[in-house]
Amino acid sequence: MAPDRLDLTFAALADPTRRAILARLAAGEASVTALAEPFAISLPAISKHLKVLERAGLIGRSRDAQRRPCRLQASPLKDAAQWLEQYRGFWEESFDRLAHYLGELQRKGAGHGDDG
Amino acid sequence: MAPDRLDLTFAALADPTRRAILARLAAGEASVTALAEPFAISLPAISKHLKVLERAGLIGRSRDAQRRPCRLQASPLKDAAQWLEQYRGFWEESFDRLAHYLGELQRKGAGHGDDG
Repeated sequence: MAPDRLDLTFAALADPTRRAILARLAAGEASVTALAEPFAISLPAISKHLKVLERAGLIGRSRDAQRRPCRLQASPLKDAAQWLEQYRGFWEESFDRLAHYLGELQRKGAGHGDDG
Repeated sequence: MAPDRLDLTFAALADPTRRAILARLAAGEASVTALAEPFAISLPAISKHLKVLERAGLIGRSRDAQRRPCRLQASPLKDAAQWLEQYRGFWEESFDRLAHYLGELQRKGAGHGDDG
């Protein structure tokens, strides 16, 4: 897995419009016009976002039809998820610590009586 | 979960040096000088990367010590992983399709005899 591939993937995901486009394509392929509809931005702006997604390999365009619908290509998301997975131990650990802390607070609260 | 939080996280991850810094911090907290060591870039450049990571909440700096070591804060990674998780069905499906395709190829190969 070349590092620049992950660069492109994460950079493409760092925008709410592009994430919304991927969410829309998860429901099925769509034309550029259909993709632009829910957003208050111009067609050229949408096209720019689509180019970023296409460069990252997150979407593909059909060649056959004239309207060239876009479809989701999820494999770069898998690589990004695998990269993040290395850190699972850390976020679970901090959750464990928080749970322990809340447990301690609760025990202390119970010790001081429940007059609330 | 505010969308701009994910923007900051994904943008922070879209750089190989910043990902390498996180990997180093996964082994324990480290000073800026120690973090800079393995990279052929200046201390100011490292500081810039650290600011991006800090703004995304991916690292924290101790206030007590003079050298203010950095430490990993993994919770934004959890949110990013959860966002990606929505698409797991898609990348598993494409893997299934590939496996099916390879199985078909193998069966066809077997049908034509094994004279190789």
